[in-house]
Amino acid sequence: MTKSGNVPVRHATMRGRNLAVVLEHVARHQPVTRARLAELTGFTKTTVSTLVALLENAGLVRDGALVHEGERGRPGVGVSVHGDGAAGLGLEVNVDYLAACVVDLGKKVRYRHVVGAGNRGRDPGAVLAALAALANEAAAAVAEQGLSIAGTAVALPGLLDRESGVVRRAPNLGWTDVPVTGAFGPASPLPAEYDNEANLAALGELWFGGGARLGDFVHVSGEIGIGAGIVVGGRVFRGAHGFAGEIGHLVAEPGGPPCSCGGRGCLEQIAGQEAMLRAAGLPGPRTATGTAIATGSATGPDGSVGALVDRLAAEDGAALAAVARAGRALGGALASAVNLLDPDTIVLGGVFSPLAPWIRPPLRAALADGPGTLRREIPPVEVSGLAEGAAVLGAAGLVIERVIADPALLL
Amino acid sequence: MTKSGNVPVRHATMRGRNLAVVLEHVARHQPVTRARLAELTGFTKTTVSTLVALLENAGLVRDGALVHEGERGRPGVGVSVHGDGAAGLGLEVNVDYLAACVVDLGKKVRYRHVVGAGNRGRDPGAVLAALAALANEAAAAVAEQGLSIAGTAVALPGLLDRESGVVRRAPNLGWTDVPVTGAFGPASPLPAEYDNEANLAALGELWFGGGARLGDFVHVSGEIGIGAGIVVGGRVFRGAHGFAGEIGHLVAEPGGPPCSCGGRGCLEQIAGQEAMLRAAGLPGPRTATGTAIATGSATGPDGSVGALVDRLAAEDGAALAAVARAGRALGGALASAVNLLDPDTIVLGGVFSPLAPWIRPPLRAALADGPGTLRREIPPVEVSGLAEGAAVLGAAGLVIERVIADPALLL
Repeated sequence: MTKSGNVPVRHATMRGRNLAVVLEHVARHQPVTRARLAELTGFTKTTVSTLVALLENAGLVRDGALVHEGERGRPGVGVSVHGDGAAGLGLEVNVDYLAACVVDLGKKVRYRHVVGAGNRGRDPGAVLAALAALANEAAAAVAEQGLSIAGTAVALPGLLDRESGVVRRAPNLGWTDVPVTGAFGPASPLPAEYDNEANLAALGELWFGGGARLGDFVHVSGEIGIGAGIVVGGRVFRGAHGFAGEIGHLVAEPGGPPCSCGGRGCLEQIAGQEAMLRAAGLPGPRTATGTAIATGSATGPDGSVGALVDRLAAEDGAALAAVARAGRALGGALASAVNLLDPDTIVLGGVFSPLAPWIRPPLRAALADGPGTLRREIPPVEVSGLAEGAAVLGAAGLVIERVIADPALLL
Repeated sequence: MTKSGNVPVRHATMRGRNLAVVLEHVARHQPVTRARLAELTGFTKTTVSTLVALLENAGLVRDGALVHEGERGRPGVGVSVHGDGAAGLGLEVNVDYLAACVVDLGKKVRYRHVVGAGNRGRDPGAVLAALAALANEAAAAVAEQGLSIAGTAVALPGLLDRESGVVRRAPNLGWTDVPVTGAFGPASPLPAEYDNEANLAALGELWFGGGARLGDFVHVSGEIGIGAGIVVGGRVFRGAHGFAGEIGHLVAEPGGPPCSCGGRGCLEQIAGQEAMLRAAGLPGPRTATGTAIATGSATGPDGSVGALVDRLAAEDGAALAAVARAGRALGGALASAVNLLDPDTIVLGGVFSPLAPWIRPPLRAALADGPGTLRREIPPVEVSGLAEGAAVLGAAGLVIERVIADPALLL
């Protein structure tokens, strides 16, 4: 009958929440004195000292150098998050690669590893075994840096049940009802989490890329498939079953090419990585398993998008036509997203990053013809600097967010 | 850097919040004893008595008959919301009618009045003067029932700035940058609110129609224009600027008929009330100003959709073709909404209600061809029982929700 949200405030939960308040302020203002924390939180200095001590014992914060704050006389000891304690392990299964990444409590990237892998149609057990090996390698490597894995999050390219970790449908992998639960890396205090790679790429952009400046945004990840992560008020909008943001299956060309989902003319059949390469007359993504890939590459894990960029730069007609068509289709789908979701910003990620100089103009024209006529202005279309690293960064960051939002989990 | 939501809990705000907790439980469980309220809220009986006394003094709750609760001996005095005290006034401007509605604190409708009005292209000042007259009439009528207006909310068919009450763009009215602020009805304690009619129709459906059973839902209001209200977790999803849910301007037929927004082939040019009537060879909505309209009518305020229903029932070819085309277009737009938003349920409202027997089958087929292929199941498509009364009910309900969420506003 009435809105939820008003629940009685009881004192038992206050300590946990107050620990989170202090840790959040430390993360945001570090290094920060206990006196300044008292001002920021409204707690007494005694309460702040008690809470900081609890966080210190859990290895989440530590004292550092003296800091001067404003005009007020003597410097105080600065409290910072403990960069060499708890860490988040992010993992990613994608159609043509696997990735692992470890991020410390200060959201500094401490480890990254991406390997090419031909995962389409490959036995899920083999894919997951390779992912587990990657996870164990990552945990061992960061243990040498003194870090311990607080939890793991796995990015997956499909519709999944986050509670159970079952991938319901990942058309580009050929998976249906595949459980992804299992031991990824060492035992860790937090339960493993699973999420759609488009959602985690958007969170990666929020935490490691454009940040809060983007406002509410739609992040479009171009890979073999295309997914959108919708960020509203700093959180991912997931929909009722966690299946929101499936922009790759909006119909871009009615009656168009058949899609792996069973439909026809889906956006990803026109603007997906493979579709663009094919239309440009280039071979599809190579899928040599086990190839190490330079991290932070913005040209597709195996360089196939790099070949497309070369053709575009050389003004090859087929390449230009393929990407112009993709841009129009993507702009049409984003016009629907803008009309329905009304974001502040659109961010192009994944393979759309390196293609931005060619794909953005037709995309913006399609947006201006659609919602632009109603709204007068269309949202700015930005380009992610993270490209294909976004999802695995978002996964690792998710673990850190869990710890900061509820540090009592590690006490 | 970190998610918002963790704010320090201080005691100054606790009383206001706790008043809201008690009032919510009274509204949900009425009549309810103070002893049961103590169980429900976790507060002591003394605290509950103090809070109930404050609410009683403000005229928000009152004691009623004795109630027996469970097996525990003697009956207690039941507390209920005060149905004859504070009330919410809802107002609506639409293209072909104006409406007013008053709802009491128990969300019982105490007054409704709908008048036909040719508002397209009419001077905004004249429209708003007519609306103010309707509001004053409503307030005077319910004053005789002992009710006093706690606040007013106005439903408008366009993009608006809710803070300032300025309608930025209402293409079907022909309004651009029209301020709607002003005295609608008597002075009242809460500031007036303004919202898009599609948002308020969705809230009307939530509070007076299908309710919580619908889960997260998309409510599609068919009027002259078509708008969607997106309800997530019991709240309207508004987007960054309050312009979310503009489903009427999704492109249904690329290069199709020109739209009042400046675009082409927008959904409302195929599935809007006027477009369907025209395609069926029927005259458009009549717009005789000042005609009293039967409240709760499900066939368009002036009966024009009733004529279409008659033709459909008589299996008229043009009418059947017009509505089948509208259903396919609506299904295509809703396919995009399902892929992006992942709702539990879709609800057809406004003029789509009486047309449901004809419009729903092609709509469901389009949904099954789109997201149905990816998800295996499409969300159920329900039909609102409120039809065109939903937005003005939602507006009145919004005022009641404000009071229940923060009763301290009336103390």
